[in-house]
Amino acid sequence: MDDRGLLLGDGLFETVLARAGELVDLDAHLARMAAGCAVLGLPAPDPAQAQALMRRAISEAGLGTARAAVGLTWAGGRGGRGLDRPQAPQPALFATAAASAVPGTPARLMISTVARNEGSPASRLKTLAYLDNVLARREATLAGADEAVMLNGRGEIACAAAANLFWITGGEVFTPALACGVLDGIVRRQVMAATAVREVAAGVEALAGAQAVFLTNSLIGVREVGSLDGRRFEASARVAEIAGLFSFPIHGGGGPA
Amino acid sequence: MDDRGLLLGDGLFETVLARAGELVDLDAHLARMAAGCAVLGLPAPDPAQAQALMRRAISEAGLGTARAAVGLTWAGGRGGRGLDRPQAPQPALFATAAASAVPGTPARLMISTVARNEGSPASRLKTLAYLDNVLARREATLAGADEAVMLNGRGEIACAAAANLFWITGGEVFTPALACGVLDGIVRRQVMAATAVREVAAGVEALAGAQAVFLTNSLIGVREVGSLDGRRFEASARVAEIAGLFSFPIHGGGGPA
Repeated sequence: MDDRGLLLGDGLFETVLARAGELVDLDAHLARMAAGCAVLGLPAPDPAQAQALMRRAISEAGLGTARAAVGLTWAGGRGGRGLDRPQAPQPALFATAAASAVPGTPARLMISTVARNEGSPASRLKTLAYLDNVLARREATLAGADEAVMLNGRGEIACAAAANLFWITGGEVFTPALACGVLDGIVRRQVMAATAVREVAAGVEALAGAQAVFLTNSLIGVREVGSLDGRRFEASARVAEIAGLFSFPIHGGGGPA
Repeated sequence: MDDRGLLLGDGLFETVLARAGELVDLDAHLARMAAGCAVLGLPAPDPAQAQALMRRAISEAGLGTARAAVGLTWAGGRGGRGLDRPQAPQPALFATAAASAVPGTPARLMISTVARNEGSPASRLKTLAYLDNVLARREATLAGADEAVMLNGRGEIACAAAANLFWITGGEVFTPALACGVLDGIVRRQVMAATAVREVAAGVEALAGAQAVFLTNSLIGVREVGSLDGRRFEASARVAEIAGLFSFPIHGGGGPA
């Protein structure tokens, strides 16, 4: 009740895909959390303890043979006074697991009015202060869309509320640069390693004029976008090809993940 | 452990001054929390329950005759899936109390590099996603200052990490407009009711050129600023006069609070 993670959003999380008990890209997730701790000035969690807690969460939820979303939370810990941390913060580590299905349809996007704060380092991290993303997603849901596109304070495309964003124009693949206020997504990195991608700072007109748009995150891999504020996108062979690299079948044996 | 307040910063808080058991401006604090709930799309807490929890927290901490900071937290509640709230969120209410001293010296300020996100409604609320404020304060503390001045994404002065900000130039009192990404502070309102204040959108040069600067919040009332990034301010009779209206003596009997 008096943890700084709860009171102030002081802490970090990761969401890891588990396939039949396998924690996909676990090392990359734990390395990203450790790097985020360095930015925030928090100690990093012990990787072995993190893995053990995640495995136990999967097991206790009876998801050992399923496709699951495993949440790892590193909450700032007790103590300090108001905004000020204690001298030696002692964050608390815990994990949860829930079944996770692959969405079967292209995503319907809308442009959110909630801005991404590219002027804070937190905009490039998965922090426990994720309320802007909650509000953007809520706005999308109320508008009948699946996901929200967040623009930063300069009006540049940043990301979706819970995914990185790519688009294809003239055969080239684009994604917002991290400096736009973007999480360094693990599937984002994998897409960039698998195909040529230009990192750009672009206004929303770039999306409106794109031939295809897709989302990435660790749970869905790649998801094609079917519409943006009512404008429809045709199915794209190029997106299907990229998505094929990141299909996450329930019982393993899929792409390089 | 699975409350959305902890996992995502989805919720609100208030910090109320208690003087010898009196909850100062309690109605205004509860009304502000209820208004914030409307913005976030959460139900509002029951005022009677909130008051009872706060009184119990004071009593259990043995602070019934002391000056205390009473924190009231309205955490988003369990359920939902990822960013999506459950159909009917059931937030959890709790209160804590701790002794609170009045700072005895003028505040030393520094300009933070962490931006205030004026493009999110959360920038005008006391949300559980307060990490940007934590990071700004940490930057100030590491630089040997007491408080951080946060500029918004447009470079306009917004507020301090845990206080509203005023300055005096040419005998006029100024404060950033709420649209700059500013909490509608209760003492801020009281200062504006007690004296003429111009709400403005101003760059940091307005502070650098000011004759006097002061901070307000519910715990400190009014605190004069002694320096900003090393530039010193002389003691100001006008600030002392305004501060005199909001002195919070331990055993009551002071100004209008």
